[in-house]
Amino acid sequence: MTISNDVIGLVAGILTSTAMIPQVVKTIKEKDAENISPFMVIILILGTATWTYYGVLKNDMPIIITNIFSCFVNCVMLFCKVKFSKN
Amino acid sequence: MTISNDVIGLVAGILTSTAMIPQVVKTIKEKDAENISPFMVIILILGTATWTYYGVLKNDMPIIITNIFSCFVNCVMLFCKVKFSKN
Repeated sequence: MTISNDVIGLVAGILTSTAMIPQVVKTIKEKDAENISPFMVIILILGTATWTYYGVLKNDMPIIITNIFSCFVNCVMLFCKVKFSKN
Repeated sequence: MTISNDVIGLVAGILTSTAMIPQVVKTIKEKDAENISPFMVIILILGTATWTYYGVLKNDMPIIITNIFSCFVNCVMLFCKVKFSKN
């Protein structure tokens, strides 16, 4: 039962952590991040960092692994937002 | 210790679930969702639904509450994407 829980958690985490990847690809391709809210990206970085801490407290591997990855992807997105925004 | 864990989990969940709100507000204000990847939104809906299921399996309230909310916000975002995309 624990193994299947972990599998569900990993599937959930892979989905939410890979969600930003098509957005990053679209932004890099179009070199345009005008419609992207910088607040969304910053809040996601803080949120995934806090989830990672929660995962450490609860010793919950799916949460830890997928949120570290998610935090990294959001940092890349923030870099794209700064680089491609026309201001 | 359990209470403080729950607080950390709730903070994490509130951050990641409210992250899409500035994006939704920005999209509604600008009536423009061209730069938003529909794949991101669809994957987030699937991911938060799976996280909710994981929360139920692990009986983890912070995960359940915040992912139900997050799933709802992403459904609103998907509606905006469909409504405001110029095709």
